[in-house]
Amino acid sequence: MGRLSDFQNHLVQSAKKVSDTISRLIPATDGPESRLSDAMRYATLNGGKRLRPFLVRTSAELFDVPEDRALRVAAALEMIHSYSLVHDDLPAMDNDELRRGKPTCHIEFDEATAILAGDALLTYAFEIVGHPDTHPSGEVRSKLVMALAGAAGARGMVGGQMLDLMAEDSSLGMEQITRLQRLKTGMLIAVACEAGAILGNAPDPAHHALSAYAHDLGLAFQIADDLLDVEGDSEIVGKKTGKDAAAGKETFVSLLGVDQARAQAGMLVDQAIEHLAPFEDRADSLRDLARFVINRDS
Amino acid sequence: MGRLSDFQNHLVQSAKKVSDTISRLIPATDGPESRLSDAMRYATLNGGKRLRPFLVRTSAELFDVPEDRALRVAAALEMIHSYSLVHDDLPAMDNDELRRGKPTCHIEFDEATAILAGDALLTYAFEIVGHPDTHPSGEVRSKLVMALAGAAGARGMVGGQMLDLMAEDSSLGMEQITRLQRLKTGMLIAVACEAGAILGNAPDPAHHALSAYAHDLGLAFQIADDLLDVEGDSEIVGKKTGKDAAAGKETFVSLLGVDQARAQAGMLVDQAIEHLAPFEDRADSLRDLARFVINRDS
Repeated sequence: MGRLSDFQNHLVQSAKKVSDTISRLIPATDGPESRLSDAMRYATLNGGKRLRPFLVRTSAELFDVPEDRALRVAAALEMIHSYSLVHDDLPAMDNDELRRGKPTCHIEFDEATAILAGDALLTYAFEIVGHPDTHPSGEVRSKLVMALAGAAGARGMVGGQMLDLMAEDSSLGMEQITRLQRLKTGMLIAVACEAGAILGNAPDPAHHALSAYAHDLGLAFQIADDLLDVEGDSEIVGKKTGKDAAAGKETFVSLLGVDQARAQAGMLVDQAIEHLAPFEDRADSLRDLARFVINRDS
Repeated sequence: MGRLSDFQNHLVQSAKKVSDTISRLIPATDGPESRLSDAMRYATLNGGKRLRPFLVRTSAELFDVPEDRALRVAAALEMIHSYSLVHDDLPAMDNDELRRGKPTCHIEFDEATAILAGDALLTYAFEIVGHPDTHPSGEVRSKLVMALAGAAGARGMVGGQMLDLMAEDSSLGMEQITRLQRLKTGMLIAVACEAGAILGNAPDPAHHALSAYAHDLGLAFQIADDLLDVEGDSEIVGKKTGKDAAAGKETFVSLLGVDQARAQAGMLVDQAIEHLAPFEDRADSLRDLARFVINRDS
């Protein structure tokens, strides 16, 4: 096997551990509320690549954080990511019927259940992070809560989604698209790395190096996503492609063209990898992930 | 002025402080995201009675908690309450167009904005509670995060809302209605009192006495709400009345009848007040609130 397929194997193993953790944290229940836990499980146990959890775990490993702690935060972050997808897919938002090749949550259940399952996942993420099992120090847990909430809220992911919805009626330039995507997807990717540093009480320079890596990675990730929307096979991508163009939305690809967008993503990945120099070969998984992000087909 | 109107005056003053705090925490913004902060402000700065914040503040006073700390938690709890109303009012949920006499959030803005504003309020509540300004101890902040998330999530408010939606297709008995309402509204009322105790590092017996008070208060509150739905004037109540009957939903009133429901609410309030005995006259505001809850007209 080549280096990339070794890495993909590593990623699959990590995704399995994260899924097992999520499944344990959201047990299937009996009784009348089972519909809610069923929808929460459906939204999270869906064969995703678990890139954000991988970032949490791999960043945490740099600081020798015990695996079970990192897994809890990784699961919480994935719940936040999953809730955002459930709400984004709703008819009043992006109105998507397919996600990772399966019916979206509101199609499989119904709209009300999807709204509530998203709400419950978001709430539960903070309960998990606040729990002493995540870290013995209340200071560390509170820092994690604030970091996750900051990245996920009005000045982060939700704010970016609001900008994205409004972008359908206006045409954005590079600066505005970059800002929108930094909020909508970049900040949650960045906080994944930051969470590892917080869990490990990382010194400031290490913290900053990881943040810089994550910032570049997040943008590269988004450009790769835009490229997949233009060039990807919807069967492999697992959701409808060509959506941005159909919605008349500007993207990195519509603004830069395919070739320049691909070059830009490659440059960002190189730049991301440079930030990892202080960690020497301990950060090889993060380097592999950066390369994978722009070479994936789904 | 009589004792009750003295109390109402006290409640109005408290509500004003809470509104000022929320307004400071969610400043109006310029730029493209202003739509999101506008909707968040609309959903929270709406002339509500702020009963839950009053409970946080009054419980915290029992343990000499500095006012600014209690106000932050009170504001966060009110944001959680407000987000739940915004989402419950959505067309896919209760489909309400009027709330406190004004258009609901999705009518004033649109559905997508209402979903996002709710998400952002819920997320922000945890960011506020996790911030060192709320309490110098990270342990206390983490405990608050866990308590709020537990009460608001799948095993609390969101779970209760799921049961409520499912109740439209089935007829529930007293035990099931009591459980539904304990989850849907009781737990958030209970955590308001609990938050005061956590902020004040209250000893266990005081903590338990407050919990018992809040438990009975929550149920009395819900019965009073059901009575208002049957007997209230929609102009004064500020939302459509007669909704439960129209939806074919069982309530405390449909199961017990008006007279017995009123008697039950009175008994619960007496019981709630008894739990406050250990606090002697320091808990008079909590006693007044309990009496107010079943005598209000909106």
